[in-house]
Amino acid sequence: MAEILVRFRELLGEISDLRSAGAVLGWDQHTYMPPGGAPARGQQLATLGKLSHEMFVSDEFGAALEEARSEVADLDPDSDEARLVKRVGRDFDKATKVPSEWVAEFNIITSKAFMIWQKSRAEASFADFVAPLEKIVSMRRQYVEFFAPYEHFYDPLLDDFEPGMKTSEVQAVFEELRPQQVALVREIVEKGSPVDDAPLHQKFPEKKQWEFGLAVIKQCGYDMERGRQDKSPHPFSTSFSRDDVHITTRVSPEFFSEAFFGTMHEAGHAMYEQGVSEAFERTPLSSGTSSTLHESQSRLWENLVGRSRPFWKGFYPKLQKSFPKQLSSVDMEAFYRAINKVKPSFIRVEADEATYNLHIMLRFDLEMELMQGNLAVADLPAAWNEKFEEYLGLIPPDDAKGVLQDIHWSFGGFGYFPTYALGNLVASQLWECIQADIPDIETQIENAQFGNLLTWLRDEVHVFGGKFMPTELIKRATGRDLTPEPYLNYLRRKFGEIYAL
Amino acid sequence: MAEILVRFRELLGEISDLRSAGAVLGWDQHTYMPPGGAPARGQQLATLGKLSHEMFVSDEFGAALEEARSEVADLDPDSDEARLVKRVGRDFDKATKVPSEWVAEFNIITSKAFMIWQKSRAEASFADFVAPLEKIVSMRRQYVEFFAPYEHFYDPLLDDFEPGMKTSEVQAVFEELRPQQVALVREIVEKGSPVDDAPLHQKFPEKKQWEFGLAVIKQCGYDMERGRQDKSPHPFSTSFSRDDVHITTRVSPEFFSEAFFGTMHEAGHAMYEQGVSEAFERTPLSSGTSSTLHESQSRLWENLVGRSRPFWKGFYPKLQKSFPKQLSSVDMEAFYRAINKVKPSFIRVEADEATYNLHIMLRFDLEMELMQGNLAVADLPAAWNEKFEEYLGLIPPDDAKGVLQDIHWSFGGFGYFPTYALGNLVASQLWECIQADIPDIETQIENAQFGNLLTWLRDEVHVFGGKFMPTELIKRATGRDLTPEPYLNYLRRKFGEIYAL
Repeated sequence: MAEILVRFRELLGEISDLRSAGAVLGWDQHTYMPPGGAPARGQQLATLGKLSHEMFVSDEFGAALEEARSEVADLDPDSDEARLVKRVGRDFDKATKVPSEWVAEFNIITSKAFMIWQKSRAEASFADFVAPLEKIVSMRRQYVEFFAPYEHFYDPLLDDFEPGMKTSEVQAVFEELRPQQVALVREIVEKGSPVDDAPLHQKFPEKKQWEFGLAVIKQCGYDMERGRQDKSPHPFSTSFSRDDVHITTRVSPEFFSEAFFGTMHEAGHAMYEQGVSEAFERTPLSSGTSSTLHESQSRLWENLVGRSRPFWKGFYPKLQKSFPKQLSSVDMEAFYRAINKVKPSFIRVEADEATYNLHIMLRFDLEMELMQGNLAVADLPAAWNEKFEEYLGLIPPDDAKGVLQDIHWSFGGFGYFPTYALGNLVASQLWECIQADIPDIETQIENAQFGNLLTWLRDEVHVFGGKFMPTELIKRATGRDLTPEPYLNYLRRKFGEIYAL
Repeated sequence: MAEILVRFRELLGEISDLRSAGAVLGWDQHTYMPPGGAPARGQQLATLGKLSHEMFVSDEFGAALEEARSEVADLDPDSDEARLVKRVGRDFDKATKVPSEWVAEFNIITSKAFMIWQKSRAEASFADFVAPLEKIVSMRRQYVEFFAPYEHFYDPLLDDFEPGMKTSEVQAVFEELRPQQVALVREIVEKGSPVDDAPLHQKFPEKKQWEFGLAVIKQCGYDMERGRQDKSPHPFSTSFSRDDVHITTRVSPEFFSEAFFGTMHEAGHAMYEQGVSEAFERTPLSSGTSSTLHESQSRLWENLVGRSRPFWKGFYPKLQKSFPKQLSSVDMEAFYRAINKVKPSFIRVEADEATYNLHIMLRFDLEMELMQGNLAVADLPAAWNEKFEEYLGLIPPDDAKGVLQDIHWSFGGFGYFPTYALGNLVASQLWECIQADIPDIETQIENAQFGNLLTWLRDEVHVFGGKFMPTELIKRATGRDLTPEPYLNYLRRKFGEIYAL
C-alpha cells in the first residue's frame, strides 16, 4: 500500500480506536458499572467523543484525506481503498460543514433534554419537555441549513442514518406502504379468527430462557469466540471490532417473547458486524453500512427466521423440553400463532410485526411537520394521539404511553425512525432472493441448519461493511431498488393464513 | 478558581479521562472480553496510551503548566491546588526528559518480550528470554541516563513507583530487615511447633466462597455502590474514578486462602481509591500516592486485619456456618494457625507473611546487579537459585518456579518489586499508630466493627490521594520515617506465639 494510504489509515485507525473505546465504556455503563460511576463515566465518554471528533475534522486529517483522494484517483473506483477514501471523505465533508460551537451547544442541549425527558416520561407529563424539544427542533433546523442547498429539508437529517437516501424515496415507499398496512391491520382486527397468546404469558425461569436463547443464536452462527451476551435494562448490540461484538438481553420472567426475540434481534445485528471484511478493520467501514441495513439483519433473524413456522418445527420440541410445565400441552401450531399475534398497542418496541411500521410512519409524519414548522411542539401530544387513532385505532391513555415513549427526540435523533420501517422492507426483499438462491431454505431452517443462510448474508451484505452505500447495496444484493412489495406480500401471506382472512 | 487553573485542570481532566478509559478497557480485557477481541483491544489500549502521553508532554500542556506554576506561587504550598501543580509538574518534568522515540521503541520491545516471557514460563525454559531481557536491561540503563545526575543509578527506576524515595533509604531498610527476617524464618522452620493447614485444603464450593468474601469486604467498608467484584485469572484492583473502583478475585475450589485473602487484599487497594478526596477528581492525585502506600493498605486488610485472631473470633462462626462440612470440627485456634502457616516456598504470590519479603529482597538484589552490569542476563537463573537457597533454604526445581515466575521484568518494571516489601513495613508502622489511637481496636474487630479503623485510614492516608509524597505521608501519618521495626516486632510477636518460639 502506498505510504500516503498507510498514513491515512493510521490516522483513521486512531480515531476508530477512540470510538471503539467509547463503545466499550458505553457497553459497561449499561451492563456492569456501579451506580456511583455514572458522573465520571459521562465525562470520560464526552472526552472520547470530543477528541475523536477533533481528530477527524482536524487540518491534519483533512490534509491526509486530500492526499489519499489524489492517491486513489487512478485506482478501480470499486476497490476497497478507493471506496474507503470516498466514504470517509463524504463523512469528513459533512462533519466539517458543522461548526464546532454548534456541536458543543447541541451536546449540552441534548444532554439536558435527555434528563428532562426521562423525568417527563416517568411522570407522564409532556409540559416540561416542551421547551427543550423546541430548542432541539430549532437547532436541527439550523443543522439542516449547514447543508443547503438540499432537495428536501429532511434530507440532511435522514442522511445521518441512511447515507445517500433521499426523503423523496422514503416518502414514495411510505405512500405505497401506509394505506395497505393500515388496511391489513384493520382487516386482522375486525375479521381475523382470534389468536390466543396466553401460553407466552406464563412463568418462565430466567436461567432457562437465557440458556435457550443463547443456544439458538450460537446455532444460528453468532460466534461467541468473538462476542458475548450480557444483561441490560434495554437490549442493544455494540461492536468494539469485528472480532468483539457484544449483545445484551433483557429477560422477563413472565413473558417468553421479550428475551427470546430480543436475543434473536440483537444477534442479527451482531452477526452483521462479525461478518464485515477484515480489510476494513480500524476504519468506519468496519461496521454495517446504515441503520436500515442493520435493521434488515436484526429483523430478518428475529422475524423471518425466528417467527417462522419452519424454525419452530425444528426448535419447538427443544423449547418444550426446556419448559415442560409451561409448554407440554401447547402444540406447535398454537405456539406459532401465539408468537405472531397481531394486536394494535401503544408501545413501539412491543409492537408486533404487522403493526410495527405504523408506529414508525406516524413518527416520520410528525417529524416532518415539526421540522417544517407546521406543528408546534406544544401541540405534539394532541397530534400524536390523533394520528395514533387514525393508524392504529387506539388513543394512548397518557403521554408516557404516547409521545414521550421514545428516547430519540431527546437526543435530537430526527431522521432515525424511518430506518426501522425500511429495515423491515429490506429484510423481506432480501428474503425473496434467499428463497430463490436456496430453494430448500425452509427445510434447512427446520433442521436448524443456518450455514447457507448466513453465508448468503455474509457474501451479499455483511462482508462489504460500509463499502457500498445502502441503496447501492440493496440493488447489488437483490437486483432492484428498495420496494415495499416483498414486505407487503410477506405480511399478507403470513397473517392472511394465521388469521384466516 | 482562577481561570488559568480552570484551564489547567480541564487539560488534566481530558488526559485523566483517557487514562480512565484505558483502565476500563484493561479491566474488561481481563474479565469479560471474548478471546477474539484481544488484537483490536491491544491496539485500542496502545492508542489511548499514546494519545494521553502526547497530550501530557505537549507544548500546550507545558505552557498551561507554566502558567499554573506562576499562579500558585503565592498560595499556601500545602493547599490542594499548589500541591496538584507541584506533583503534576514533577511528573511532567520526568516525562519530558524521555524522548518519544525511546518510549515508542521500549513499548515495542516490551510487548514482544512479554509474549516471549509467557512462552518461556510455560515451557520453563529461560533461554529464549535472554535476548529480550538483555535488550530491556540495556534500554533501562539508557532510561536512567535521561535523569542524570542522580544519587544512585537505581533512583530513577525506583522513583517511577515510589516518587521521591531514594535507593539508599531502601537499602538501609533492607540491610536491617534481611538478616532478622532470614533468622526468624530459619527459627520457625527449625524449631517451631508444627502447624497443620490441611483444613484449608478441602473442597470449598465456589459460590459460597464468593459470597462469604463479598459479605466480609462490604462489612469492612468496601462501597459496592461505587465498586464491584468480578472474576479474573489474576486478581487486581482498578479505578475509573474514586466512585468506580473495581476488584477482581480468583477462586480456587480446593484451597480456601486463595479467594478470601485475595479478596481482602484487593478490597484494601480499592478502599484506598474510594477514599480519595473528591477535590482531586480527574487529576493524577485522584489515586494512591505510591505503590508502597497502596500495598500498605492491601496488606493491612489482608494480613493485619484478615489474618488476625480478633478478626476470626468474630467471623469464624459465620465461616463455619457457610462451610459446616469442612470446618465444623476445626476449632478457631486451629484455623487461625492454619491461615498463618509459615513455609518457605517457590512462588512469591503464594508466599506467607513471614517469608514474603525475602522473595522481594532477592529480586531487589538481582535487579541491582543486572542494572549495574555485575550480572549477565544469561547468568540470572543460577544467581536466582543460589540466592534463593541462601534466603529461603530451597532451590527451585525449574525456572518457571524460579526466575521466570514474575511478569515484571518482561514489561521492564525494574524498581517495582521493593514497594511490595515496603508496603508490609508501612502497614505495620500504621498499625502501631492505629492501636495507640483506637485502644480497643481488637475488640472492635472481634465485633466486626471496622468503621473507626476505616475512618482512621481515610483521614490519615486515603483522603490525600497523591497530594503528599509517600515519605511525607508516612511521616505525617505515623510521626516518623519509614522503619522496619514495627514490622519485625509484629512478625516476632505473632509467629513467636504461633510457633511457640
